[in-house]
Amino acid sequence: MAEQHKFLMDESKIPEQWTNIAADLPGEPLPPLNPGTGQPLAPEDLAPLFPMALIEQEVSMDPNIEIPEEVREAYRLWRPTPLMRATRLEKALDTPAHIYYKYEGVSPSGSHKPNTAVPQAFYNAKEGVKKLATETGAGQWGSSLAFACEMFGLDCEVFMVGVSYDHKPYRRAMMETWGANVHRSPSDLTEAGRSQAEHTTGSLGIAISEAVEVAAGSEDTKYALGSVLNHVCLHQTVIGDEAIAQLEMAGEYPDVVIGCVGGGSNFAGIAFPLLRKKLKEGLDTRFLAVEPAACPTLTKGVYAYDFGDTVGMTPLMPMYTLGHDFVPPPVHAGGLRYHGDAPILCALVKEGLIDAEAIPQTEAFEAAVTFARAEGIIPAPEPTHAIRAVFNEAEAAKQAGEERVILFNLCGHGHLDLAAYQAFMSGELEDLEFSEAEMERALAALPEAPSVA
Amino acid sequence: MAEQHKFLMDESKIPEQWTNIAADLPGEPLPPLNPGTGQPLAPEDLAPLFPMALIEQEVSMDPNIEIPEEVREAYRLWRPTPLMRATRLEKALDTPAHIYYKYEGVSPSGSHKPNTAVPQAFYNAKEGVKKLATETGAGQWGSSLAFACEMFGLDCEVFMVGVSYDHKPYRRAMMETWGANVHRSPSDLTEAGRSQAEHTTGSLGIAISEAVEVAAGSEDTKYALGSVLNHVCLHQTVIGDEAIAQLEMAGEYPDVVIGCVGGGSNFAGIAFPLLRKKLKEGLDTRFLAVEPAACPTLTKGVYAYDFGDTVGMTPLMPMYTLGHDFVPPPVHAGGLRYHGDAPILCALVKEGLIDAEAIPQTEAFEAAVTFARAEGIIPAPEPTHAIRAVFNEAEAAKQAGEERVILFNLCGHGHLDLAAYQAFMSGELEDLEFSEAEMERALAALPEAPSVA
Repeated sequence: MAEQHKFLMDESKIPEQWTNIAADLPGEPLPPLNPGTGQPLAPEDLAPLFPMALIEQEVSMDPNIEIPEEVREAYRLWRPTPLMRATRLEKALDTPAHIYYKYEGVSPSGSHKPNTAVPQAFYNAKEGVKKLATETGAGQWGSSLAFACEMFGLDCEVFMVGVSYDHKPYRRAMMETWGANVHRSPSDLTEAGRSQAEHTTGSLGIAISEAVEVAAGSEDTKYALGSVLNHVCLHQTVIGDEAIAQLEMAGEYPDVVIGCVGGGSNFAGIAFPLLRKKLKEGLDTRFLAVEPAACPTLTKGVYAYDFGDTVGMTPLMPMYTLGHDFVPPPVHAGGLRYHGDAPILCALVKEGLIDAEAIPQTEAFEAAVTFARAEGIIPAPEPTHAIRAVFNEAEAAKQAGEERVILFNLCGHGHLDLAAYQAFMSGELEDLEFSEAEMERALAALPEAPSVA
Repeated sequence: MAEQHKFLMDESKIPEQWTNIAADLPGEPLPPLNPGTGQPLAPEDLAPLFPMALIEQEVSMDPNIEIPEEVREAYRLWRPTPLMRATRLEKALDTPAHIYYKYEGVSPSGSHKPNTAVPQAFYNAKEGVKKLATETGAGQWGSSLAFACEMFGLDCEVFMVGVSYDHKPYRRAMMETWGANVHRSPSDLTEAGRSQAEHTTGSLGIAISEAVEVAAGSEDTKYALGSVLNHVCLHQTVIGDEAIAQLEMAGEYPDVVIGCVGGGSNFAGIAFPLLRKKLKEGLDTRFLAVEPAACPTLTKGVYAYDFGDTVGMTPLMPMYTLGHDFVPPPVHAGGLRYHGDAPILCALVKEGLIDAEAIPQTEAFEAAVTFARAEGIIPAPEPTHAIRAVFNEAEAAKQAGEERVILFNLCGHGHLDLAAYQAFMSGELEDLEFSEAEMERALAALPEAPSVA
């Protein structure tokens, strides 16, 4: 047989600790700010929304944080995920590069999101919370949290962006199958929803406001977020930790590590453990964060304090931002349409430890179809962007005549996103322009805050 | 940690041979008949439709048939599939039974179908065929063959039942992503299609006729079938062979083996290797084939020679049948709506080696939702029927106070069938009655043929 294709590990190899990259950063990280006072946020400011265990993780500087046994137990349903060598793709691309991908699509909801949904549900249940409220756009996060809540006996209330609720009934069916209560947002269940009733198609910003209102208004209900925050990125590091062990099985180590970036958590998941290894061992690994050309936060945004949500209810976070009310064009990779990025990831980009690149969606889908024909997996719209970057690296290796090792995170499958492929196959998928003018408008509305320079 | 959940094997453990259960049957199997002459079919009668290697497998009495290296190479993309112990489900059901499932949903198309699509494409390519034509209903088979053809450089032409083409655009997008040319059936590309133009919603029978016409009318095009035939059941036995090795890892052996039955191939895949073991070693294993109450071929059909297709173009096959033009009600498990069953499976049911049971779809989906909440996997509509039977066995074990071991085949995921769950969750899923009168009508049209008694 040819080169080994799959590198599997049994469940005893599920990591016992999460990797907290905050401990590896030079200096103290910039704190989030209370938007009312402009002062650094105190942990107790977050207590109405999150359980204490997660707030502690959010500000922790411990290099490693133990994964509770109950969480590892739940992870066993799908973890460790496979590491694959894309031997058929290498042939199709006629490249000397060795291409590896960590496949997170084997999880219940088909993406990396349950890696954090499960511990979030666990810690909330442990602290006596009865219900989690959240928002969801395309549905990846809502379905992951629905399943995690089911596992730990929590109720789950999901505010789903109206246009997705109408056009993605199958994601809703998935959430309901796992026991969640799904509302079309804007709803008439909250003040925020009622005040935005004229925005009939909804937005992630409105849905966040609704979920936060529900959580803040009830003693035994908390809020859960699927990306951006430190504790979310932390939980995702099981991806990279497993990958390191599996690369050892393969006897190789990557020259470049690639992932797509929306809020930043799947990229953090694959990159942070390998970044720590690079820093500790002086390795020469390159890290490449890939974003959509239509929403190029890291490559065109400014580094500043901004709100995490559209309507301006969250703490101010130091990050690359296009402005909190920047409206990105409706690219198919809904999970990448975010005006900012995880502060911890932004700090690493700022330090020059992580490179960033923007890719137009037609190029991304073209690469994804080649990938699907070679490897059999139809990627979710988000990682198609990472795949195009992988192709570029593979071509560069070919031009250089070098056997470079590429690792990327295939963070989810596209079974519930086939409309995007339908559009691409029928020639109807278009590149959507990034609007400098829209960014200028949105950046003019940045909140007053200390400089981050 | 609790009991191990996943039993994984690396790709070196992909079986090297398929299990040909025909060699284990008492006596010679009844031959298929030429419908024109009533005489046993000669291998060359099939040559316009199938390559010689598959025709030889169709009639082979060799106990084992070697899996070509190129096929094992392709299987590596997703095989060996995991064997799972449903520990969380056992708890949810509060049963002393140990429940194991072989999960075929990890394949590119999300079901067991690529197990035979890949060797079929391989043998055709090896004999110089340029294109495969086939039909598909819900799309599981068409998408599997599309991917397999892509792997071996064949063109693939799929006639998709009109109503599915209209309502399942995502399955079509999947086939097109993998390079297939998909036509709505009835089409105006074939005589058969044009003659049935008034049946605008189409039927599997018409789609078969169109694909067969395309194959028969071209020197370098052949036809491919996704179930029923001996060589198809043969290819699926990798499922059971792997399961035996994985059960050994678990240190257990099943008391009962369960699978759903449409044409019979996924059931054959899990059951035949364990059935051989039972026959050889005198084990006490029970085998249970589960069909939908709305199309109860094995439990209510007659054992007779009948056509394999609706319109009466195929050879006559000895099988349990409801009559070849029996119209089953539109249950969501489209893959189980078949008037007959694989002759080899029927012979084993006739011999009393395999039991059969019929399950209504509401009971099946109710069980599937419990399964999905416990194990995280949302099953395809077809295996929901097997899952209900598993629940019944688990309850029987509880009543008996016995630690029975149950093995079933979870032959696919339901990501592209969530409309069925949507119907169930909203209370709109109904049980559809089996019509004795419709069966009587269809049985009156059985072709003239020798008795099989």
